Parts: sequence; C-alpha cells; structure tokens
Amino acid sequence: MKRSLTGIKPTGDIHLGNYIGAIKPALKLAANHESYYFVANGHGLTKPHQKEELHALTKGVVASWLALGLDPNQTTLYRQSDIPEVFELSWILATLSPKGLMNRAHAYKAMVDENEANSRELDAGINMGLFTYPILMAADILLVEPDVVPVGKDQMQHIEIARDLGLALRNQHKVTVKLPEPYIMEDVAVLPGLDGRKMSKSYGNTIPLFVEKNELKKRIYKIKTDSLPPSAPKDPATSTIYMLYKQFATTEEVKGLEGAFQEGIGWGDAKGELFRVANRELEEPRELYKEWLANPEKMERVLEDGADRVRQVSVPFLQTIKKELGLT
Amino acid sequence: MKRSLTGIKPTGDIHLGNYIGAIKPALKLAANHESYYFVANGHGLTKPHQKEELHALTKGVVASWLALGLDPNQTTLYRQSDIPEVFELSWILATLSPKGLMNRAHAYKAMVDENEANSRELDAGINMGLFTYPILMAADILLVEPDVVPVGKDQMQHIEIARDLGLALRNQHKVTVKLPEPYIMEDVAVLPGLDGRKMSKSYGNTIPLFVEKNELKKRIYKIKTDSLPPSAPKDPATSTIYMLYKQFATTEEVKGLEGAFQEGIGWGDAKGELFRVANRELEEPRELYKEWLANPEKMERVLEDGADRVRQVSVPFLQTIKKELGLT
Repeated sequence: MKRSLTGIKPTGDIHLGNYIGAIKPALKLAANHESYYFVANGHGLTKPHQKEELHALTKGVVASWLALGLDPNQTTLYRQSDIPEVFELSWILATLSPKGLMNRAHAYKAMVDENEANSRELDAGINMGLFTYPILMAADILLVEPDVVPVGKDQMQHIEIARDLGLALRNQHKVTVKLPEPYIMEDVAVLPGLDGRKMSKSYGNTIPLFVEKNELKKRIYKIKTDSLPPSAPKDPATSTIYMLYKQFATTEEVKGLEGAFQEGIGWGDAKGELFRVANRELEEPRELYKEWLANPEKMERVLEDGADRVRQVSVPFLQTIKKELGLT
Repeated sequence: MKRSLTGIKPTGDIHLGNYIGAIKPALKLAANHESYYFVANGHGLTKPHQKEELHALTKGVVASWLALGLDPNQTTLYRQSDIPEVFELSWILATLSPKGLMNRAHAYKAMVDENEANSRELDAGINMGLFTYPILMAADILLVEPDVVPVGKDQMQHIEIARDLGLALRNQHKVTVKLPEPYIMEDVAVLPGLDGRKMSKSYGNTIPLFVEKNELKKRIYKIKTDSLPPSAPKDPATSTIYMLYKQFATTEEVKGLEGAFQEGIGWGDAKGELFRVANRELEEPRELYKEWLANPEKMERVLEDGADRVRQVSVPFLQTIKKELGLT
C-alpha cells in the first residue's frame, strides 16, 4: 500500500469549501493509502498569535477531521510539534539548500512584490519563519517518506523543493531517501460561496461547516439568486444552489433538481432542498464535532498515539541520516 | 555560581594559538562557573564535508579539551546534535526573527560583498545554513540560559542577536528567558606564528598542539629570527620566541630569558629553551590526547552523560516555551 502525507493548517472556521475541496478528497485518499496527516502547528507560528488561539485552532482542526470520518486507527493523525525529528531534519536540509532556492519561493516573492508595490523595504514584515518554511515543509515530507503528497496546483513548488533537497541528501551524503510525487487531485470541485464567487474566508462568503441546523439554513437562504419568477426555467450550470447541491445529493436527487430547474422552481424551494441534503450529511459530523471538542483528553490521546506511530518511522530514519552525515 | 556557555567548532589540528587564545582562558573560566561546553557539529554541516571527516574532527576536539584539562564532571561537555531541543527552539526563534536581522549579519554580508567584488550573483555559494546560523546559535545559547558567553570582539553580534530573539520571546510570548551577557576575554594573548604574523591555519604558520616531541622541536626551530649574532643584545618585545616563551614559562624563567636577551643569546639556544618549557606543559596532554583518541567509547560516554545533563535543563525549558506559544 502506498503511503500518503498531508499537512493541515490550523486555521479557524472550516467551511463547506474546505470540506468539499480538501477534506473529503483527502479522506477518500486515506481509504487506500497508508496515510499520515499532521496538524502543521509549527507553521502556525509564522504569524503573530496568542497561545490560546493557536491552541484552540489546533483542537478545532483535529476535532473537525475526526468528526468528518478520519479513522485514527487507519490514518496516523499527529501534531507537527510533537516530532522533534522534523526540526532536526529541517536544519540538515537548510545546510543543503542554496539561498537562491528560497529567494525564488513563490510565497516569499509575492510578499516582496507586495512590499515593492507599496514602496516598503523589500523584506518588511517578513520573518525568517516565512522565508524558510519551504525547508520545514520539505522536512515534514521527507521524514515520513511518503509516495505521494496530495497538492493543489499552486503548491507544486513545495513538492519540487522537497524533491530537490531529498536529491541533495542522496547525492551529497548517500542517504537513501524516497522522493515524493505530487498527487494532484483532479475533479475536485471549487465551490461557489454565497455571492457566487469562490467560497473563501477572505471573501466573507462562506458557509461554516459545523454551525447549528438553524444557522446552516439561514446561511443557505442568503445565497444570491437572480430575480426569475418561480415558473421560469433555470440554468443549473450557472446556479450556486445547484453546484452545492451536487456535492451532497444522490445522482437521482441531482436529476430530480435538474428536472425541477427546467420545469421551473422557486429559489426558496431550491434552497430548502439544498438545506435538506446538506444537513443530512452534516448532522452527524456536527454532533461528533461537539463531542470531540468536549473531550480534549480523548483528542490528546489520538495525537499522542499518532506521534508514537510517526516516531517509529522518524526516529530510526533521522538516526540513519545523522550517521551518514557524520553527526553521530 | 554563574553559568557560562561556549560552542567549540569541530576544526582540525588544534595549534598553540587556539590553546593560548581560546582553550586555556575557557578552561580558566570553567573553574568558577557552572559551565556548558558543546561541540557545534550541527554548525559543521554548513560546509560540504565527508562524514568520516566531521566525525573525526568532532572526536579530535573532544579529545583535545579533555586532554587539556576539561573536567567532564565539572563542565558539561556535549555534542550539539544530541540535543533535539536546540533545533526545535531554532524554528521558534526563526518565526520571531525579522529577515532583515539576518540580511545584516556580518558573516553573511561578508560573503555577499565577496560575491559582489567577484561579479558573481550576490547569494552564490551561500546555503541556508550559512544564512540562518545566527538563529541556531541563538537557540544554542538561550536554551541553556547562561549568564555569560565568552566571545571575541568579532563575535559580539551573535550575542546581540541571541538577546534580540530572547527579548522577542519575552515580549511576544511572555516566556521568562535569561538574556546572556557577552564575556569578553581580556588579556588573551594573540600568539605569533612561525613567520611572526598571527598564528593561524590560513597562514600555514602554526605549531600544532599535539605533535610528537621531535616534531614540536622541529617546528620551534623553524621560527623566523633575524641575523643578529649570538653575542648581540636582543629585543624581547619583537621576538616571536620570547612571546611564545611567556605563555609556558614561570615568571622567574621569563626574567631569566629577558636577561639572556640583554646579555646576548644565540637564537638556537633561545629556541631550545622555548622547546623545553613548551614540551614540559604539553607532554602530559599529548599522552592523554592519544589515550582519549584510543578510547572512543569512553569519549562517547562523556558526551552521552553531558547530553543527559543538558537535557535536564533543555527539555523542561522547551516544554515551557511550547506551552506558552500554544503548541502543546
């Protein structure tokens, strides 16, 4: 069975877009991979934060994935900060990484460009965590030796850097380390938000995943529609309601809604139908989410168990690397 | 008792200049400090190397210090790579370090200037280990919470960066971390080498510390002198022989040689006298050095014991920091 690895950022308020676009495909991938999913709380330090906030976000992410069906016996779920080997390997990789490789990292270049556009010093507001995080990410990946790392197209560079540094380890130090392949998730839907644009926290157009039933209904009823009367035929291809509906409904239900669109359906009724299928899928996770959050010790045990399992891989692997580099 | 910390670079062929200029004063400092001395083998990775080489250099440094009188029961002697907390803290400090702070680091700026002078790309040949090592160094220091760190004047910036990052930890995260003070070693002699210039590996003018008796004699007889005849009075102030002699001779012996210089002494005789006192001091360490090198397991036990002692400090300290940052 092939091994897969995914890092999960501790960001708040998971919404339908995250669920459909990232979490669901990752859970599907986990079904036929030996999978390692970690909460990247070390990366969370690159932004100024309060300890309570980072702590709560981490717990929220863990509770979400568990509530949505991640089986911690099958998928190794762990917290980055529990694996010291990641940070040791990160230093080793830094010594193998030309500075030019970081100068060319997309995220850094974007920050520099923005500073330039605003006539600020080029490195204004950029800390060394932000500058060097592709190295830490390479360490996250190489340490567990996954076959595949699921990524969006905009994250391909992270895999390339990990491969570059893995190759440097191989060539300069005769360490046999697996080079990861990107696993680009095809057919992953980009969900529209309440206003029809891509659902995104930065647009403020999201439907949060774990809100109560009534709040979910309220949000769905806020979806922007046109002013066609109920009797007029409607085009599914341009309808936010239809696109969201497809994610939760059975094939038969989708056909039914398509028919209703052709025959004419009031937007209120269409929203009611979307709410029904979305709530059907989210009802149970919503309760499980609350249960997990109410049991932090139980989550802690999952994470500790996950860390134990990772370290069965990472400790001997790092030991080999340190030996090959002449450190021990 | 105040705590002191020193990092020792794993470089080869320790010579008289290292001994008089760095090792002896550090051993003196250890006599009235709770001292932590570590072999900075992680920093050794920033240069391309063979594993056997780094390994041998590390062992050579450890054997040298032990042979020269470092008492491992009194001074905690450890290997940087045995302390995972250093690398974990280093990432935390990176997230607190403005990139501009590294852009302004002396060593990095010198490399950039050299590239510029040679019309190369500014970052040519610079790896991320070289660029970020002041952060790792700050982690080395802050983790052990020393009161003082002995430094040469050219290393003051390292302490300043460590203090800056320690302050950031304090201010942004309410971690109580001790800010180290530099301890500038006054009256430390800069030894002249065989050609009268500063004794330095890069000048190829050194007298290695642990060479055999005959080789030591041979080297001393190579010291450049003027062509004054034996009977002519000689000036101690300009004599390499005299300056080296002062480091090994008793006050009485120094007075004796001063008298001989005034009265006239042949350079051969002066060299013979220098050899006598130098060999007197180095005879025993030379044998001890060989003994330690012949017993790698014994050195390993010293280093393991040292690591245990450091981790009694570093593990709970890092745990506190991780808690205060919201990582655990």
